[in-house]
Amino acid sequence: MTNPNDESKPENVTQPPPPPPATVDLEGGGGAISNIIRRWKREDLLNRGCLATRGFCFVFSLLAFIIMASNKHGDWKDFDKYEEYKYVLAIAILSTLYSGLQALRQVHQFHTARELFTRRNLAMIEFFGDQVMAYLLISSASSAVPLTNRMREGADNIFTDSSASAIAMAFFAFFSLAISSLISGYKLSNQSYI
Amino acid sequence: MTNPNDESKPENVTQPPPPPPATVDLEGGGGAISNIIRRWKREDLLNRGCLATRGFCFVFSLLAFIIMASNKHGDWKDFDKYEEYKYVLAIAILSTLYSGLQALRQVHQFHTARELFTRRNLAMIEFFGDQVMAYLLISSASSAVPLTNRMREGADNIFTDSSASAIAMAFFAFFSLAISSLISGYKLSNQSYI
Repeated sequence: MTNPNDESKPENVTQPPPPPPATVDLEGGGGAISNIIRRWKREDLLNRGCLATRGFCFVFSLLAFIIMASNKHGDWKDFDKYEEYKYVLAIAILSTLYSGLQALRQVHQFHTARELFTRRNLAMIEFFGDQVMAYLLISSASSAVPLTNRMREGADNIFTDSSASAIAMAFFAFFSLAISSLISGYKLSNQSYI
Repeated sequence: MTNPNDESKPENVTQPPPPPPATVDLEGGGGAISNIIRRWKREDLLNRGCLATRGFCFVFSLLAFIIMASNKHGDWKDFDKYEEYKYVLAIAILSTLYSGLQALRQVHQFHTARELFTRRNLAMIEFFGDQVMAYLLISSASSAVPLTNRMREGADNIFTDSSASAIAMAFFAFFSLAISSLISGYKLSNQSYI
C-alpha cells in the first residue's frame, strides 16, 4: 500500500511555493519556455505530417488520372463512354493540381520561412480546401464502384481491371486527404494568440 | 486593473489612457471584458447554428430513410434488389441516429448547463463525428445517382421518383452535416485556454 508518511509529512513542511503566476502554463507541468519549445516541436511535426499526406494524395491522384486517362481499348471499353469514369478522371485532375500546389507551397515555405498568408488564414484555407477536395474524391470514387462491380460480373478484362485500379487510387487519395484534413483541423485547434 | 474614473469623467481627461498592458487583448479594440462577452455571444451563436444544422440533418436523413424503406412496388421495383439503395438506406439510418443523438445531447446541455465531456474533447468528438458521417452520406448518395439516372432513361415511374427523392434527401443531409462540420472546425479553432 502507500506510505503513511506521505500523509503526515506535508503538515510539518511549510507550504510549497506556488507556481509563478507570470508564466502562461498551458497544459500544466513544466515552465513556459519548455512549453513553447514543445509547442514548436509539435507544430513542426504536424507540418511535416501534413506535407507527407499531401504528397501521398498527389501521387495517388496522379496515378488515378494516368490510369483512367489511358483506359481506352476500343468498342465499349472506352472510359469516356461512361459518365462515372469521366467524373473520376475530372476529380483526379483537380485533386492532382490541388495537392501538388499545396505541397509546393508548403515546401517553399519551409525553405524561405516566408509566409504568404497569416497563419490563421492559412490554417482556415487549408482546412476548407482539404475538406472540399476530400468530399469530391470520395463522391467520384464511390459513384464509379457499382458500375465496375456490374461489369466485372459479366466480363473480367483489362478495361475493368484498369477502372478498378483507378478507383482504388482515388480512394487512397481520399484517405490521404481525409487524414490531412483532420490534421488541419487539429492545427486550427492549436492556434495560439501569442 | 482598469481605472474606475474612466466611465464617470471622460471630459476632463484629454488623452484617453492607453489600455492596461496586463489585460489579455485578444483581437485588438475594446477592453478585455467586452472581448470576453463578445466571445461568449459568438460561442452561443455557433452552438445554436450547430444545433440548427444537426436538426436539419436529422430531418433530412429521417426523410431519406422513410422514403427509401417504403420504396417497394413489387417485381424489379424493390429497393432491396439494388445494393446502392441498400447502402443509402443503411447510411440514412446511421445518420438519423447520429444527428438525433447529437442534437439531443446539445439540447440537454442547454437546459442543464452540465457538460458530459470537457469542452475541448467535446469539440474534437463533434468534429471527427461530423466529418466521418458527412463522408458516408456523400458516398452513399453519389453511389446511387448513376443507377437512378440509367433507370429513368428507360422508365419514369413511382419507383425511380422515390429513389431520386431519397437520394436528394441524403444530399441535403450531407450539406447540413458539412456545414455543421465546418462550424465544429471553427469552434475547435476558437478554443480558449482561459
